[in-house]
Amino acid sequence: MTAVARRSMNLGAVRRHHLSMLLESLLQEGPASRAVLARRIGVTKATASALVADLAARCLIIEGGASSAGTSGRPGVEVAAAGWSVGALGLQIEVDRVVACVVDLAGAVRIEHRVDGDNRRTVPARVLGRVEAVAKQALAEAGAAGIRCVGGALAVPGLVDPSTRALFVAPNLHWLDVDLTRLDQALGFELGVDNEANLGALAELRAGAAVGLRTFVYVSGGVGIGGGLVIDGALVRGVHGFAGEIGHVVVDPNGPQCACGSRGCLEAHAGTGSGATPEQVARALTVALRSVVHLVDPQAIILGGDLAASAEVTERVAEQLRQETLGGRWRPCEVRRSILGTDVAAIGAAATVLNATLADPTLVPLSA
Amino acid sequence: MTAVARRSMNLGAVRRHHLSMLLESLLQEGPASRAVLARRIGVTKATASALVADLAARCLIIEGGASSAGTSGRPGVEVAAAGWSVGALGLQIEVDRVVACVVDLAGAVRIEHRVDGDNRRTVPARVLGRVEAVAKQALAEAGAAGIRCVGGALAVPGLVDPSTRALFVAPNLHWLDVDLTRLDQALGFELGVDNEANLGALAELRAGAAVGLRTFVYVSGGVGIGGGLVIDGALVRGVHGFAGEIGHVVVDPNGPQCACGSRGCLEAHAGTGSGATPEQVARALTVALRSVVHLVDPQAIILGGDLAASAEVTERVAEQLRQETLGGRWRPCEVRRSILGTDVAAIGAAATVLNATLADPTLVPLSA
Repeated sequence: MTAVARRSMNLGAVRRHHLSMLLESLLQEGPASRAVLARRIGVTKATASALVADLAARCLIIEGGASSAGTSGRPGVEVAAAGWSVGALGLQIEVDRVVACVVDLAGAVRIEHRVDGDNRRTVPARVLGRVEAVAKQALAEAGAAGIRCVGGALAVPGLVDPSTRALFVAPNLHWLDVDLTRLDQALGFELGVDNEANLGALAELRAGAAVGLRTFVYVSGGVGIGGGLVIDGALVRGVHGFAGEIGHVVVDPNGPQCACGSRGCLEAHAGTGSGATPEQVARALTVALRSVVHLVDPQAIILGGDLAASAEVTERVAEQLRQETLGGRWRPCEVRRSILGTDVAAIGAAATVLNATLADPTLVPLSA
Repeated sequence: MTAVARRSMNLGAVRRHHLSMLLESLLQEGPASRAVLARRIGVTKATASALVADLAARCLIIEGGASSAGTSGRPGVEVAAAGWSVGALGLQIEVDRVVACVVDLAGAVRIEHRVDGDNRRTVPARVLGRVEAVAKQALAEAGAAGIRCVGGALAVPGLVDPSTRALFVAPNLHWLDVDLTRLDQALGFELGVDNEANLGALAELRAGAAVGLRTFVYVSGGVGIGGGLVIDGALVRGVHGFAGEIGHVVVDPNGPQCACGSRGCLEAHAGTGSGATPEQVARALTVALRSVVHLVDPQAIILGGDLAASAEVTERVAEQLRQETLGGRWRPCEVRRSILGTDVAAIGAAATVLNATLADPTLVPLSA
């Protein structure tokens, strides 16, 4: 029965699906009356009214003035998504700073805070204390600005299990086996956790250099090099949440020692600590990306972080890949530079919470 | 409207979905009466009867004797999937032979033919002539055995575009830009085309070492080394159909020349033409798979073809990966050997046709 059972959809799922469609329609196509909404998502006007009442009780929509746009006869009351008054908290731990931001449902970054400090020379508990402080500051400012945060997520530079929120290893922080659930109590909600480059890839997809792409590879360079793999619009997390670690794709098995314990990883050849020249960085990137392109066949590679700094490196990598990949002669892979700033992972963390809210508005409790 | 429109399902799609569920239910759970089928897939008995009539008119099911299993009162007539009388043709071009097989809807390989010959020293037209001959022989035998072939597909060792059925390059055959549509007329149907290792991965998923896995990497060794990537149960084809080329993942950028034109690919280090010892093959595999595991984080690696021959190589690669990957200490990646024979790509080719038939039974024309 598994295949058959898997395909059946219960009534709760249908309702969540309708709520999601209605909210997305309001965000993408703008405010509308209940009658127009009913037509947009293909339900009766009575169902549309019930859906609107549900979303209003969760404070996800607001009701405005009368309008006759798109309808004949008596004007209906316009309904709009609460794009500016609902948001999510995004947090990010880097080697040399912590970041907090608040992104609203309309996609705007409304609040950003950074606190510099060397997190490599600090015990995890103390760094998490810094995260808590900057998060609380951001939440307080959000409250003052009339933004209700429906949740939050944290980006970390290492291998994590998003379901248990255990961090296994963050080589460049020198962290091993850290429990990241301890911030929940201070923040008042269950904080999501994911790898920073995975979240960066999601941010690029939502509002950066990857908008409109279905399949791409994001490579973010700094002290460490992280990556995120998006296939058919979905982030590939891997079986244990460890996918996308492009920094540990092998460039030369006899190359320099890497923070991970092995030799010759991309990170050891092209991380900011490697002392490589731009030419050497481009060469190491090409060798690693040859493997990635042959494996995944993406539309584009997006270079982020410090790797986004040089147009010359980007062009050199694109040209070398064209020459050195099997399909490069017929279908060369594009290489683009990130257009988002350095807080991309924090923005991506907030975006995951907003995406989850859009996909299932019932995750937000009824507040009426 | 895109997000909203994408989610709406028209009536034709609902009917195809019901036909698919009913056929899959008959194959997975066995014969049943119309009343039992109606309960299994959650439709009225009248709808179930109409669906049964449709599938019968396409010769995809057969009606048997009376049965009272699972029902109270008057017995219904049992309906069964035509598992043994419907099949698909699978074809495979290798460096040193061509293969044809017929797989039936129940998954059994009913007919297999191989013709040896060095396809590297032969023009494509002549090799396709050999394929046509062995295909016709297999189809004739299928007809004599009472198996109606609903379509077929061809596995090739190179980069292809499955939509246009153009082969861009097959390095080990020395083929460039070959049109593979020319067999359609001789066979009487549109022959599907795909990369051999992609099809091998699908065969492993359907009936081999990958049954029950969601995310795995298939690596098939011979003169060339091919690969297939399955993520969340779906084959990753890449944007141009070029994904999964594990043979061209870099082992050593200063390594031996590869047939693809670059240096140091896995294939140049561990293909049967490389003259590598089992130890050298294991080492090269480990270096390439380090990159693959860091990128994809699969449940398992499946070694196929000549790479499946040695238990020692398999164990050595698994142990080295455990030590040399970032997550290996916490969540080591399993390494398995293929349990399917050398015709795995031909079987996978037939499986794609059968999968398409199961997903949309209306692809088979009404023959009543």
